[in-house]
Amino acid sequence: MKEYDLIVVGSGPGGYVAAHKAGEMGKKVLLIEKDALGGVCTNWGCIPTKSLLNSAKLYEHAMDSEKKGVIVKDVSFDLAAAMAWKQDTIDTLKKGIEFLMKSAKVDVVFGEASFNSQQHVLVNGEEFAAESIIIATGSSSVVIPIPGHDLDHVVTSTEILSVEKLPSSLAVIGGGVIGVEFASLFSTLGVKVTVIEMLDEIIPMADKEIAKLLRREMKDVTFNLEAKVTRIDEKNVYYTDRKGEEKSVAADMVLMSVGRRPNVANLEPLKLKIDRNRVVVDDTMATSVPNIYAIGDVNGKSLLAHSASRQADVAVNNLYGDKKDRMRYHAIPWAVYSLPEVAGCGLTEQEAKDKNIDVKVVSTQMRSNGRFLAENGKRAAGLCKIVVDAATSIILGIQLIGPYSSEMIHSAAVIIESELRVNEVAQIVYPHPSVSEVMKDTIVSLAHNL
Amino acid sequence: MKEYDLIVVGSGPGGYVAAHKAGEMGKKVLLIEKDALGGVCTNWGCIPTKSLLNSAKLYEHAMDSEKKGVIVKDVSFDLAAAMAWKQDTIDTLKKGIEFLMKSAKVDVVFGEASFNSQQHVLVNGEEFAAESIIIATGSSSVVIPIPGHDLDHVVTSTEILSVEKLPSSLAVIGGGVIGVEFASLFSTLGVKVTVIEMLDEIIPMADKEIAKLLRREMKDVTFNLEAKVTRIDEKNVYYTDRKGEEKSVAADMVLMSVGRRPNVANLEPLKLKIDRNRVVVDDTMATSVPNIYAIGDVNGKSLLAHSASRQADVAVNNLYGDKKDRMRYHAIPWAVYSLPEVAGCGLTEQEAKDKNIDVKVVSTQMRSNGRFLAENGKRAAGLCKIVVDAATSIILGIQLIGPYSSEMIHSAAVIIESELRVNEVAQIVYPHPSVSEVMKDTIVSLAHNL
Repeated sequence: MKEYDLIVVGSGPGGYVAAHKAGEMGKKVLLIEKDALGGVCTNWGCIPTKSLLNSAKLYEHAMDSEKKGVIVKDVSFDLAAAMAWKQDTIDTLKKGIEFLMKSAKVDVVFGEASFNSQQHVLVNGEEFAAESIIIATGSSSVVIPIPGHDLDHVVTSTEILSVEKLPSSLAVIGGGVIGVEFASLFSTLGVKVTVIEMLDEIIPMADKEIAKLLRREMKDVTFNLEAKVTRIDEKNVYYTDRKGEEKSVAADMVLMSVGRRPNVANLEPLKLKIDRNRVVVDDTMATSVPNIYAIGDVNGKSLLAHSASRQADVAVNNLYGDKKDRMRYHAIPWAVYSLPEVAGCGLTEQEAKDKNIDVKVVSTQMRSNGRFLAENGKRAAGLCKIVVDAATSIILGIQLIGPYSSEMIHSAAVIIESELRVNEVAQIVYPHPSVSEVMKDTIVSLAHNL
Repeated sequence: MKEYDLIVVGSGPGGYVAAHKAGEMGKKVLLIEKDALGGVCTNWGCIPTKSLLNSAKLYEHAMDSEKKGVIVKDVSFDLAAAMAWKQDTIDTLKKGIEFLMKSAKVDVVFGEASFNSQQHVLVNGEEFAAESIIIATGSSSVVIPIPGHDLDHVVTSTEILSVEKLPSSLAVIGGGVIGVEFASLFSTLGVKVTVIEMLDEIIPMADKEIAKLLRREMKDVTFNLEAKVTRIDEKNVYYTDRKGEEKSVAADMVLMSVGRRPNVANLEPLKLKIDRNRVVVDDTMATSVPNIYAIGDVNGKSLLAHSASRQADVAVNNLYGDKKDRMRYHAIPWAVYSLPEVAGCGLTEQEAKDKNIDVKVVSTQMRSNGRFLAENGKRAAGLCKIVVDAATSIILGIQLIGPYSSEMIHSAAVIIESELRVNEVAQIVYPHPSVSEVMKDTIVSLAHNL
């Protein structure tokens, strides 16, 4: 029986980062992956969707740049080429992870892990032992078992990434990040898209005004909010609308994107404390069982790739580092790579109210910004919204809708994590002309009110 | 004679920001502009170039997106349309500044300002008086008086912005930011471009490795470094190369972009201390004469629009605020909006050495980054370089080359101004997948070495 210092189960952005870091620290590490290195994020999530959304953005630009001086004829979309580019991106990243594991001397074994005891893991009939285990088994798409959910044209986010032909119409069940990104992708490529969402707004972590603006900007998508899907047949998706009336929408293809469920099925022999299907962890990522940690989607704390990676850091630092490291969740940025993009970090106005924090809120239209205007024109929508603690003027939240949002929002994480105040940001120089200035300008506009 | 609390001379990103801020504070303000609201930046600088460079980027994308699935036929560039879009951007921004001045009750008068005394300003024969004056007269393109400099086809950055037809070849004299941006613009649009630069590298504030990479990426541009232009005739630009040999390059059009000179000509009666053609100021932006401040290019401290705006803040805070405010120059970001973009903030390795600061330097290829790879492919160039104080691990400098650089670099200003250390940034979560992660990943890679 092979013995390790650490066994990591799952090689997504939680697992591979943990394995690499521990390996670099000189630990003997085994990484177990049941499918493909990089997990859902690299193979069926973050990466392929961003590759395809970039293709869609280029397609939109090609269709719509005449006013800016670019004249093109006969624009068409070659789905096979876009899919091949996407696959090449995935393959390159997988090779990168493979290389990282080799360089950190991490052993990798492919197969489904099962547990004999709290120190023994079985893969393909072979037994491995380790002092410590990090569970990073991720999550899977939830499928609601309504009539018709098992029809061939009803797919999850994994299957839709390998379509060979665009449907003429797509119904998206669920208006969260995944649903909205696919709605944006397919709609931009000319597919008639309808989103059916149970709640009263899409993108639950977004500020309501920003989510509403996103719906308005996704002009060709029909959004049905407060609508509950009841059944699916070969031609239609049936739902009850907010008034309780039975409605239907025709759909060639149906994407079920109603959420993700932590993968805890195989963990039973570990006797970890599990609450509502999530492995319970503390802020060091320790589970209820000594020497077993759980990071990423499986603990349900924050279902984002970058949260998983940071949790990996925290877990390994607590296992092998000099100092305690603790996970914090108040400054984790998120981004929706729709056209236009939306991103945020920290508290929304509503969340601040729910926590009884007295806040000032201010927002700025991006069209007051020089670069935004130069690139998008005076009728384009874009908004920056800032939430500031009224008592201390510490910046608590930043949300953005508009181009570059996903590449600008990291500075919100820096600002919020560093607990910067309005008057401190006012002294920082942002480059001109850049869309990023809108964040400073919005913050500075609060200087008068504090 | 009309009397004001403050007269601001020049309405660029220094002047109009100062006038607006003082007006908002309830001061009676006069803003004098000799030409167009917004000054060079809005009318003949930052904004029009960014508008045209965006058109060029869209053109490049239209020509080169087949592998990503976007098939187009017959791509052509409509210069008149791009110029009209650019002009619309300028006009909208000018209206915005006009509106800002009105809302802050700032009087605006158009005409060349001359000075009768240290409190009296003459415009179009009318005299105005004020307790305080802010000089924000900007700078002008330097023209070196070599034989042929006055030929019709030899232009500055102002004139080149209104060309009606693309030249077939362009020689750019000077490889600074302005020269490189125009070289990138025209080259992308199919013009044969040669850059002739006196120094041994382009973009003086860039790290040498990054500047070299930019040259390599601007594939269709010929760069002649350590070359001194001697004369220009109707067909050629003549220069002496690094070996002292006389060479020439054929050019339909010649752009002279060898630098900018502060506009101090009319300031003589103010008897300000002027050194090497720059108005001498302290870190409160005060000149040698009480109640006269000088901001922006005219003081020669940092010829960047955003430096001017921050200096405007500092000047007005010192004039009317509760607390002293001081200008700092160590964390001012800069960006070159070429294809690809380059940006930086803080010290380069060389600058740190010159200051005898012991530093650690590390760089990361952007192609290790998921989003970069998805959007640009595995052969694309992109680099992030970080300079860290070896003793304290405080981050001193960040430089980038690659897409989004101009929209990411503001976070470097936040980090450097906040004196964050490597281990502090390591705990901040950056969104995945975003190119911005490369900055964190590069910083974190130093954590092992400190």
